[in-house]
Amino acid sequence: MALPDFVKIVEVGPRDGLQNEKAAVSTEQKVRLIDMLSETGLKVIESGAFVSPKWVPQMADSAEVMARIGRKPDISYPVLAPNLKGLEGALAAQAEEIAIFGAASESFSKRNINKSIAESLDAFRPVAEKALAEGLRVRGYISCVLGCPYEGRIDPTVVAEVSRELKSMGCYEISLGDTIGTGTPEEARRMIAAVAEYVPIEEIGVHFHDTYGQALANLYACLEMGVAVADASVAGLGGCPYAKGATGNVATEDVLYMLQGCGIGTGVDLTKVMAAGRFISDVIGRPPVSRVHRALMAKDAA
Amino acid sequence: MALPDFVKIVEVGPRDGLQNEKAAVSTEQKVRLIDMLSETGLKVIESGAFVSPKWVPQMADSAEVMARIGRKPDISYPVLAPNLKGLEGALAAQAEEIAIFGAASESFSKRNINKSIAESLDAFRPVAEKALAEGLRVRGYISCVLGCPYEGRIDPTVVAEVSRELKSMGCYEISLGDTIGTGTPEEARRMIAAVAEYVPIEEIGVHFHDTYGQALANLYACLEMGVAVADASVAGLGGCPYAKGATGNVATEDVLYMLQGCGIGTGVDLTKVMAAGRFISDVIGRPPVSRVHRALMAKDAA
Repeated sequence: MALPDFVKIVEVGPRDGLQNEKAAVSTEQKVRLIDMLSETGLKVIESGAFVSPKWVPQMADSAEVMARIGRKPDISYPVLAPNLKGLEGALAAQAEEIAIFGAASESFSKRNINKSIAESLDAFRPVAEKALAEGLRVRGYISCVLGCPYEGRIDPTVVAEVSRELKSMGCYEISLGDTIGTGTPEEARRMIAAVAEYVPIEEIGVHFHDTYGQALANLYACLEMGVAVADASVAGLGGCPYAKGATGNVATEDVLYMLQGCGIGTGVDLTKVMAAGRFISDVIGRPPVSRVHRALMAKDAA
Repeated sequence: MALPDFVKIVEVGPRDGLQNEKAAVSTEQKVRLIDMLSETGLKVIESGAFVSPKWVPQMADSAEVMARIGRKPDISYPVLAPNLKGLEGALAAQAEEIAIFGAASESFSKRNINKSIAESLDAFRPVAEKALAEGLRVRGYISCVLGCPYEGRIDPTVVAEVSRELKSMGCYEISLGDTIGTGTPEEARRMIAAVAEYVPIEEIGVHFHDTYGQALANLYACLEMGVAVADASVAGLGGCPYAKGATGNVATEDVLYMLQGCGIGTGVDLTKVMAAGRFISDVIGRPPVSRVHRALMAKDAA
């Protein structure tokens, strides 16, 4: 199959990335990061989460972040809003898009949010309904689509069923997350094929983690199936909460480099993304977790 | 196209890898590394080079290494032998296979060996001829197949022509090296398609560098074209001489993990390769440059 001509990058660094970083990042620094990303050509920048600050202290200032960023009319700044209270926060912050977050693993769902998969979907339904009624767009995430830290391999049919449910709630796009990064290209293909029975390929996004270095190979395999939406995190922000010291989210720089080399348009400027990545990496005090970023820095230094 | 059922891994760590590492590695440590790798199921382990010790001091003890390793009858231990003097050394060391090393970039060839591509091929011809007459097998390498540090992009037809010449000299396999790691999957596909006009796909190997994180995606794209030989370096030994501090050879661990996940046989035991990788990483004093290795270490530590 021909590769897509254009891939939409969903930048998740300011939310999914920073939420999983230990370092303290000030509201001002978050705003600066998002504003820098707004200048890169990215059209979707996940910017915060309306969740309990007790559970996720890193996102406690999302309302202020949303108030202070310089929003551009052609860019979406989604926020995580897993329940009605979160949705209220999102609405108060004038978010135009929310994300809800399901799992394809019962054990992961139980341990992460203390609900079975079915219970979590029941809880999301009124959130999605109200968000849609208020004119917001709703994106569905599914975690553990290729593996679970507690269960190991995940049955693609479960991923497909959760996808179908999220679509039935009105999610315009389903982002399929390999949360622990253990998946490989053939497994990714089988999983996408299962989901595509219920969700049009244009509405499927992929969210790969590079923990085992497989993210770009997995993405390439999915592009060959027609997937044209890829989540990525500037400078590889995020780490892997299930393997301390290991890599998490695939870096936006690495994704952009591969897509450019393959002749696929993204509308995103790699150099500007690198500038944002360098800024936030300095803030959190470690080099960017992106091979492209490091190679280009090393080349510049030579 | 269906992926191959089996991929042959050509382990290049003890030669290509260590040659590009700054740290001093003793003869005994090299022998131990090769002996450990001989227990993993690998069938090809590049073990040394018969080149000027002035130019490549890291390989000055290749004769002694070849004399001391415990060779297994079903494993090939090729050595680099770029000229007739090198071939004499290889023969004296009872090597059964040699490698010769061409380039697809005129500038790289000139700067690296002070010969044009055509001159270098002329010089290799009598080496290959004599090696074959002595009953040795000859493998051809081509560097810079997807990019050159001096010229940038490389025309696939040049790679194809150099491949054709090496095949005409009797090379049983041509290893196509992305020396600076800048290639992406679609570029790799175009290059393989060009080479496959002159060389049967079974005789094509790929040698990817992970400098820009593209190695596994590139390999996957080539597997889809029927390529079934992959060079890799345990623990990612080698670094990148053209971008200091950047990654070089793709790690054997990462390749094995992807192939296993895709249901492709290799006959190689990842756990044993990791043990060899940990040994040599301790010797050179840095953690393995393999995301799979690091992730599995982190998982074990958790």
